[in-house]
Parts: sequence; structure tokens; C-alpha cells
Amino acid sequence: MKRLAIIGSTGSIGVSTLDVVAAHPDRFEVVALGAGGNTDLLAEQVERFGPELVAVKDAQAAGRLRQRIGDRCTIVAGVPGQVDVATFDDADMLVSALVGAIGLQPTYEAIRAGRDVALANKETLVMAGRAMTEAAAASGAKLLPVDSEHNAIHQCLRGEDSAEVRRLWLTASGGPFRGWPSERIRDVTPEQALNHPTWKMGPKITVDSATLMNKGLEVIEARWLFAVPPDRIRVVVHPQSVVHSMVEFVDGSFKAQLGVTDMRHPIQYALSWPERWAASLPDFDPVAAGPLEFEKPDMGRFPCLGLAYAALEAGGTAPAVLNAANEVAVELFLAGRIGFMHIAAAIEATLETADAGSDETVDGVLEADGRARTMAREWLEQGVGS
Amino acid sequence: MKRLAIIGSTGSIGVSTLDVVAAHPDRFEVVALGAGGNTDLLAEQVERFGPELVAVKDAQAAGRLRQRIGDRCTIVAGVPGQVDVATFDDADMLVSALVGAIGLQPTYEAIRAGRDVALANKETLVMAGRAMTEAAAASGAKLLPVDSEHNAIHQCLRGEDSAEVRRLWLTASGGPFRGWPSERIRDVTPEQALNHPTWKMGPKITVDSATLMNKGLEVIEARWLFAVPPDRIRVVVHPQSVVHSMVEFVDGSFKAQLGVTDMRHPIQYALSWPERWAASLPDFDPVAAGPLEFEKPDMGRFPCLGLAYAALEAGGTAPAVLNAANEVAVELFLAGRIGFMHIAAAIEATLETADAGSDETVDGVLEADGRARTMAREWLEQGVGS
Repeated sequence: MKRLAIIGSTGSIGVSTLDVVAAHPDRFEVVALGAGGNTDLLAEQVERFGPELVAVKDAQAAGRLRQRIGDRCTIVAGVPGQVDVATFDDADMLVSALVGAIGLQPTYEAIRAGRDVALANKETLVMAGRAMTEAAAASGAKLLPVDSEHNAIHQCLRGEDSAEVRRLWLTASGGPFRGWPSERIRDVTPEQALNHPTWKMGPKITVDSATLMNKGLEVIEARWLFAVPPDRIRVVVHPQSVVHSMVEFVDGSFKAQLGVTDMRHPIQYALSWPERWAASLPDFDPVAAGPLEFEKPDMGRFPCLGLAYAALEAGGTAPAVLNAANEVAVELFLAGRIGFMHIAAAIEATLETADAGSDETVDGVLEADGRARTMAREWLEQGVGS
Repeated sequence: MKRLAIIGSTGSIGVSTLDVVAAHPDRFEVVALGAGGNTDLLAEQVERFGPELVAVKDAQAAGRLRQRIGDRCTIVAGVPGQVDVATFDDADMLVSALVGAIGLQPTYEAIRAGRDVALANKETLVMAGRAMTEAAAASGAKLLPVDSEHNAIHQCLRGEDSAEVRRLWLTASGGPFRGWPSERIRDVTPEQALNHPTWKMGPKITVDSATLMNKGLEVIEARWLFAVPPDRIRVVVHPQSVVHSMVEFVDGSFKAQLGVTDMRHPIQYALSWPERWAASLPDFDPVAAGPLEFEKPDMGRFPCLGLAYAALEAGGTAPAVLNAANEVAVELFLAGRIGFMHIAAAIEATLETADAGSDETVDGVLEADGRARTMAREWLEQGVGS
């Protein structure tokens, strides 16, 4: 019986995680849940899975939840509440599935406490990869990637010697605007950007897929998860999203992991590792999958990918600045206040003007994050208006 | 320094093996070579690699070789000579690369002696899979598959629990006649059958690829190498030969091994295992590889694949009978004496009439092999003539 704490339980990954839990009632117990303001769904989850501790966004949300669930469990709020869930003593593993920088502190505290973490919160490694991996090395916490790409690489590396890895190959669907001319891309709407060709995901990550920033963030994640430098991490566009990623070894051999595009697969792998459990999920059929294509990514029309490589090369807090500017810009794009190409422009401008310091502690990156958000917002409000 | 004995050194796999050896002079020493009647090439190999012991087909070939190389090394002949090479005390590993049933006895003796074997001789496992794997289990000899498909599966199984394997997926190029109508297939010539679309191999295995018997023999090999029953071994046609094979796990995840179509890759893997060494071979580029297609094999137009599954299900010496009838038929086809579709017909007739006994010892299968050869030859000479 594995006892789980889940932060981000009402988001896309959180809901899929609870699906996996429900499919294996004899294997899991949910002991703590953390979410934001969706107290309706959270109340249902509390009723169904019976956690001992629940964290919500703020006191207001705590009040709403209390009305729904009564005294069924302890309710805490804010970032300290999410930290309480993440480090909850009774849990064996944390599923870190908050979206954005908000997940950083709770995940870090869980890692420091030696808790194994199924990691879906990209920002944890993007912003503070060094601090996280050093803390994990010190505490013995294992980081099990939930992102389908890193999960695929984790699978391909089983039984292999990391010194014999030549390159990691992250596959990218290319998003809904692959092959579009630049003029058309300039005018895309949030609705178009949210129409992902192969994966169903939350809105922020779906826009990141459309800009290829998602892949850029994944390059940064991969650098920390697998300790491979950026010049040995390649991105290849694979529109079918069947090959979830690949590893190239020094002898020229490639290993790939393939499967259906259903996040419950990598989630279950992260939760069951080092075992594999029979999944009650649709089977993958290579014949039905159709021809599998691979293309070079277009760094010109999708500049976010290059910006991510540049931030990773720059080091220090530059990846945190990149991530912060991206979060601000995507939020404004989804609100209809800026155009699609302003996202990359805002990130580039923020990276250029921000002082990407070398303080890679969690406090240091959170401070850089705060400054970069302000700068990106100011630049977008001035720049786009002018 | 790994000391190698190689039987079949002048064949396609043997020559590629010596290429790999030459590319890593600090890692290998060739201590014994076995070949058939190609004493010209064998003499060059002796001069270049300096083995202590060499085996040839017969006394006549031994005389020719002696004239070429003088007293440079010991020369032995016949099956006993190949056994001497295969079990040569100074070797750490045997590369078993003879083509056909002739490789059986020497490989078996090496396994019994506890020698690790890089196995390219299909017939070893096709004819006597039970005897070979039981002998390996008893002696501790490791069997490292050289066939690109089994080598791929071996790579995909690294770090995995065999109890968590759901299916093995062997890829097949489909051969030169994939998609051809039955009438055209009936009239194909040896020249057409020898024109393989993706791999350069010896003539026997190239014809086997055209009939899909090669894949059938590989299903039988896979059953023994990986202890997976036939109903969990699938064949999928993949015309690009880029995905060399795949493993499906109980959780629905697939792992595939990909690479260029160059036998030096799987050979080097088998020789370097458990390490991987930087290869001086062309790199694989997924973008240049083009779309990867997967199709169901056409068991109607290519009946040899179904015959192999049937022989494996029947068990006992049926796979040896299948293999023997196939060797006879392919030989007669290459000599222009029978048509392409007579190959499958002869195998089917021989399987039906041969008494597929249950004696799965090496002696038992060799006896079944001899009887089946006679029956297949008689059937073909009568049947095709009538």
C-alpha cells in the first residue's frame, strides 16, 4: 500500500493521478491533497478518497470547503498549507502536480525531507534545478518524472549506464501551428492555441506547446533530471506523439518509449516504479498508429525553444527569469490582451534586461522570479500598447 | 582484452565481426577461427588477426590453407574441427556465425563448456532451443543475440523484469515482395529474391527474408532466448527496418530499439555487453529516417511465417523439421530447380508427413533434421516434376 500526498489534485495531472489511484484501490491510499480554489471538485475528491489533510489556496477557499465537507479532515491554506501536504508525515510519496512557480517551495521541502516525488510540476526543475537535484542527492529522495517525455527517457535509461548516453532526444508534437506561415501564427487566438493536436492538457501547458516553450522547459528539466548538458539534448518534432522520447547511446543505438497519448500511463509508471503494473488503459497498437514522422523544429518561427536553450546556457537564475516572463505573457495572451508572438518577445526582452544573478538557491530563484514577472508585465503593457 | 573464437568467419556476419574487432584493436584478440571452404579469405584473416587455431570444412580445404599460411597456426577440419574452435580453451567468448544446421554441434559444445556465445547461428535455437537453453542454464553460459531483432529486444529488456513483459514485437522488413500479388510472387526468380530492400546479408537468409521464413525462425529463436510463449510474440511488418524490434510491457508501455541497418551495430553490442562502446559507424538520424510504417504481415501470401508458428506450437522436433525442409527447398530454389512458392509447399508437406518426435536432445534433432532433408528433397523432386 503506497500512501500518496498530491498537490494540484484538481488540475489535469491531479485528476488523472486520482484515476490511476481509483484503478488500483488495493495499491494506494490518498493521505493528503492540495489544490487551489476549485473547492467543488476538491470536496468530491475528499469524499471519495478520504485524505487526512487538505490544503487550499486561501482562507476563503478553506471556508467554502469546510462548508462542503464538515469535519472530515484537517484543512490548511496558502503556500504553508501546500508545504504541510507535501511533507505530510504519513505519506510515502508526493505527487507534485501544481502548475507554475507556486509548486516550487512545497516540492523543495518534500525533497529536503527525503520524500520520493512523482514530479509533474515543471517549474520545480526549470527554476531551481540545481537546488532540487542537490537536495535530492543529499536527502536520498527519488525524483520520478511524470512528463511523458522525461518518463520515456527514464524508461529508456533503465539498466543503462549514464556514462554511455550520447544524447537525449525529446519529441515534440509541434503544436497546432506546425508548418504555419509566420503571418498566420502572428494572428492566432487563444482558442486556436488551446486546440492541441494530440494531448489533452491544462491551458497553460497547451499554450506552451503551441509556442514550443513547453519543449524548451523540458530541455531544462532534462538537463537536471538526467545530468546531461544542453548540447547533448536534442528536440525533434514528431507530430503523432507516439514516440514519447528517445535516448541515443555512445554505440549509436537508440532506445525509444512508445505508447498511447494518455497521461495516466506515465503517471502510473512514476507511481509503480520500479515495478510495472497491468494498466486498465487503452492498448497501444503500432499498426493503427500510422506512419511516424520526425522533423527538425523550426527555431525561427518558434523562438521560445531557442530562448530556453539560451537561458540554460546562461545559467544562474536565467531559466527562472525565462519561466517567469513566460508565465506572465501566457496569462496575458489567454486573457486576450497580447498577441501570440508577444510571448516570445516579452521573454527575450526580460532575459536581456533582467540581471540573471547566480544565486541558484530556492530563495534566490524566487526573488529573480518576482522581479522578472514585474519586468515582463511592464514591458508587455508598454511595448504592446505602443 | 576479450579473446574471441569465431566460427563462420568468412560469412557475412563473420566478416562484420572482424570489422568490429579491427575497429577496437585494444579490446579484442582473435584466438581461433572456423570457416568452410573459402580458404582465400580465411588465409587473409589468419594473416591479419593471427589466431592460434583454425578450422576448415575438410582435409582438402586444410591442405589449401596450409599452402597459403604455412605453419602460422594449427589447422583442423570438419565438424570436430569447428567444435575445437568453438570450445578453444583460450577464448572468452564464441561468435557462432556459421549458417545452417552445421553450427549446431559446435555451439552446443561451447555452451556446455560454459562459454559465453554471441549467437548469429539461428538454427542453434530453432532446432534445439530447449537443449541449448537448458545447457546454458546448467553451465552458466550467456547467450547474446546478434540478430538485429533479438539484439533489439535484449536492449529493451535491460533493467526490466521479465515477468512484466506482455509481448515481444519482432519487426520484419516484409522483404522484396511485400504487397505483390500472389501471381507475381509465384514467378519470382532467385535474383529477385536476393535483392533485399534494407539489409545486406548472405543468400540463404536473404531468401528467408523474402518468404518471411526468416521471421518465422526468429519467432522460434525469441521463444527460447526470452522464454516467452508463441502467443505473446507478434510480428509486424516495418518496411524501413529502422525499428529493430519492440517490447510491450504489462503497463501498456512499449520500448523500441532503433538504428541504422548495419549488422556491425548488434554484433558490437553482443561483444561489448554489458558495456556499450563508442562505435565508428554511421550515426542514426531520426529526421533523415523518414516516416516509419507498421503493417500486419500477410500470412496468406507468405505462408512460411504461419508454418513456423505451427511448428513451434507442435513442439518436439517439429521446428527442426521445418528448418531442414526450408534449407533443402531454399537450396533448390537458389539453384533454379524449383519455384518460390514450392518452398512453403515443401515445408508444409514435410511437416505433415514427418514424425515430429519429442526427442529434443541435440542428437534427436539432428536425426530429425536428416530425415526431414531426405523427405523434403524427395517431395520436391517428385512433386515439382509431376
